[in-house]
Amino acid sequence: MTRLTLAIDAMGGDFGPCVTVPAALQALASHSQLYLLLVGNPDNITPLLAKADSAILARLRVIPAESVIASDAKPAQAVRQSRGSSMRIALELVKEGQAAACVSAGNTGALMGLAKMILKPLEGIDRPALMSVLPHQHHGKTVVLDLGANVGSDSEMLIQFAVMGAVMAEEVLAIAQPRVALLNIGQEETKGLESIRAAAEVLKTAPGINYVGYLEGNDLLTGKCDVLVCDGFIGNVTLKTMEGVVRMFLSLLKSREGEKRAWWAKWLGRWIKRRLMARFGHLNPDRYNGACLLGLRGTVIKSHGAANQQAFAVAIEQAEQAVRGQLPDRIAARLKAVLVRSD
Amino acid sequence: MTRLTLAIDAMGGDFGPCVTVPAALQALASHSQLYLLLVGNPDNITPLLAKADSAILARLRVIPAESVIASDAKPAQAVRQSRGSSMRIALELVKEGQAAACVSAGNTGALMGLAKMILKPLEGIDRPALMSVLPHQHHGKTVVLDLGANVGSDSEMLIQFAVMGAVMAEEVLAIAQPRVALLNIGQEETKGLESIRAAAEVLKTAPGINYVGYLEGNDLLTGKCDVLVCDGFIGNVTLKTMEGVVRMFLSLLKSREGEKRAWWAKWLGRWIKRRLMARFGHLNPDRYNGACLLGLRGTVIKSHGAANQQAFAVAIEQAEQAVRGQLPDRIAARLKAVLVRSD
Repeated sequence: MTRLTLAIDAMGGDFGPCVTVPAALQALASHSQLYLLLVGNPDNITPLLAKADSAILARLRVIPAESVIASDAKPAQAVRQSRGSSMRIALELVKEGQAAACVSAGNTGALMGLAKMILKPLEGIDRPALMSVLPHQHHGKTVVLDLGANVGSDSEMLIQFAVMGAVMAEEVLAIAQPRVALLNIGQEETKGLESIRAAAEVLKTAPGINYVGYLEGNDLLTGKCDVLVCDGFIGNVTLKTMEGVVRMFLSLLKSREGEKRAWWAKWLGRWIKRRLMARFGHLNPDRYNGACLLGLRGTVIKSHGAANQQAFAVAIEQAEQAVRGQLPDRIAARLKAVLVRSD
Repeated sequence: MTRLTLAIDAMGGDFGPCVTVPAALQALASHSQLYLLLVGNPDNITPLLAKADSAILARLRVIPAESVIASDAKPAQAVRQSRGSSMRIALELVKEGQAAACVSAGNTGALMGLAKMILKPLEGIDRPALMSVLPHQHHGKTVVLDLGANVGSDSEMLIQFAVMGAVMAEEVLAIAQPRVALLNIGQEETKGLESIRAAAEVLKTAPGINYVGYLEGNDLLTGKCDVLVCDGFIGNVTLKTMEGVVRMFLSLLKSREGEKRAWWAKWLGRWIKRRLMARFGHLNPDRYNGACLLGLRGTVIKSHGAANQQAFAVAIEQAEQAVRGQLPDRIAARLKAVLVRSD
C-alpha cells in the first residue's frame, strides 16, 4: 500500500482533542502508511502528543486553526463564519489535494454545508447524504442513508440516495444487484409519507436499481435488503434508537462484574460473556462509527459527536478504506451510467 | 372487581380469528370478570371455539359482521365503505355502551378515522394519538406517543400529545410532575424539524408541563424522561426499530437449542437463558403489545397487526386496565384544567 494522508478536524465532537488526538495516535500506530494532519488549536493538541513515540510523530503534523464551529451553531450561520475554523481548513486540505479525505466529529449541518461548498457535489446529485454500512443479524451488511444530513427529504432526493446507496453496495461491498428498499411505516403501497410513495413509483421502474419495496423499522437488522433509504431525520432517529438498544444490551451483559462470587461462578460469568460478545459484538456501535458523506467530489467522514477514542479511530480507518476504494470516482462513474439510462 | 365487557374486532390483524379467538379465550380464562363480544364472520370464529370450556364460552358472544377492512386499504376509503365491518361494529358497541372498550389489530388509519368519527375526540384535542407505555432499562416506564396515528404532525398536535402523555403518566402511572421530552436529532435548540422547534417554544412555558427538552433516539430506553413526544411516522419507525433489535437479541439468546450437547451443557444453557431472560424479558415487545388511542371519548386499543396469541391477549388486558383506570374521563378532566391554565 502507498502512503495516504488524511486531514482530521481535531477540534470537532463533544470531547475535541481529548478524543481525536489519542485516536489519531492509535490509528497511526496500526497503519504504517498513514499520515495525519491534525487541524486545530496547537495549544490544545500538542500537550496530548507529549508521550507519543517519535516514529509515530514523524507521520503527524499539526495544522493551526484559529476557531472551532460550535456543535450547537446554526449550520447556515456557521458556514458564513467558518473562515479559519478547524473543520473548514480540514476540508480545504482535501480540496487542495494535500489530504485524500477529511474526518470530523463536528456539527453535522455545518460539515454538510461546508463540504458541499468546498468540495462540490457530483453531477446529478443535489444534496450529499450521510451513509453508514450497518452490520446485520446474519453477519452481512446493509448500506443505510441518509442518516442526518438532510431533514425533510423530497422524493427526488430519496431517489438520488437510492442510486448512491446501490452504487456503494455494488462497487464497495461487491453485492451483485443490491436489493434497495425504502424505510416506511408499513409494507402496503398506501402507507407513509407522500415523498416516500412518489419515490417508490420512480424506483419501481428505474433502470439498474433492484427495488424491493418498503421495509419497516423492525427489519433494520434482519438483512432483508442491502440498501435502506430514508430521510435524514428518520434515519438519524432510527440509527440512534438501534444504537441505544444495542448499547443497553451490551451494558447489561457486562454488568454485575463487581459482585463477590466463587471462582467457578466468576469463570462461568466470563465464559458466558465471551460467548455472547462473540455473537453480538459485531453490532456494537463503536465498531462501525463513521458515516460517509456520499455524493461529493471528495471523501468526508462524519464521526458520531459522542465518539470515544476507539470509535473515532474506526472513523479514521473508514476514511482510509473509502479513499483506497476510490469511492467518489466509482460513484461518479456509475451515477453517470445510471442517470443516462434513466433519462 | 365488577363485570367488564370489551368488544374485540376478531377479523383484524395479519392472522385474524386464528390469533384473536385463542387470545380472547386465554384472556377470559385468566380474568373471571371479563366478558367479550367477538365481532366478525361467525363461519371463521365458531370453529375455533369448539374445544373451549363451557364456563368460558358463557362469557363470550359472537357478534356477526359482514365485512373486514383490509389492512392495506386507504384509510379514507375504508372509512367510507366501513358499514357492516367488524372494526366499525366493535366501535359502535362502545358508542352504544354495550362494551366499555374496543380492541383491534386492524388497519391503523381506518381505526383512527372510524374511532374519531364514532367516539368523537375530547374537547381541546384535534387528533387522537397512539400511545404506548414502554419499559425502560431501569425497570421504570416511559409513555411514548404518537406511534403512527398521525403522519406529519404540526407543532399544535405535538403540544396536545405532550399534554395527553403527561396526564397519562401522572394519572395512570402515578408519576408526579412527569418529565416531558420531544424526540429530536440533537439536544441543541437549533436542531430538527420546524414543527418540533415551535412545539418546544410553547412547551417551555406551558403551565402544568414539566418540559425537559429534546431527547435523541438512543435515550428511548434510558429512562431520562417519563413522556416522549413525536410525530406518528417517527414514533412508528422508532418503536419498530427498537422492537426489531430487542427481538433479535432475544432470538439470538434462544438459538442453538437444537444442538446435540452433553446434559451439563444443556442444563447450563437453560440456566444462562433463564438468567438473561429475567434481565431482558421485560423488554420483550410481546409483553407490552397494545397502543391506546388517546384523546377520544372512549377507550380503543390498537394491537400490533402481526401480534401473536400471547401479544393479543396482552392488548385485551391493556383495554381492561384502561377501562378500570377510567382513562378518557381522567384525561378529559385534566385536559380541561391544563387548557384553561394555558389560555
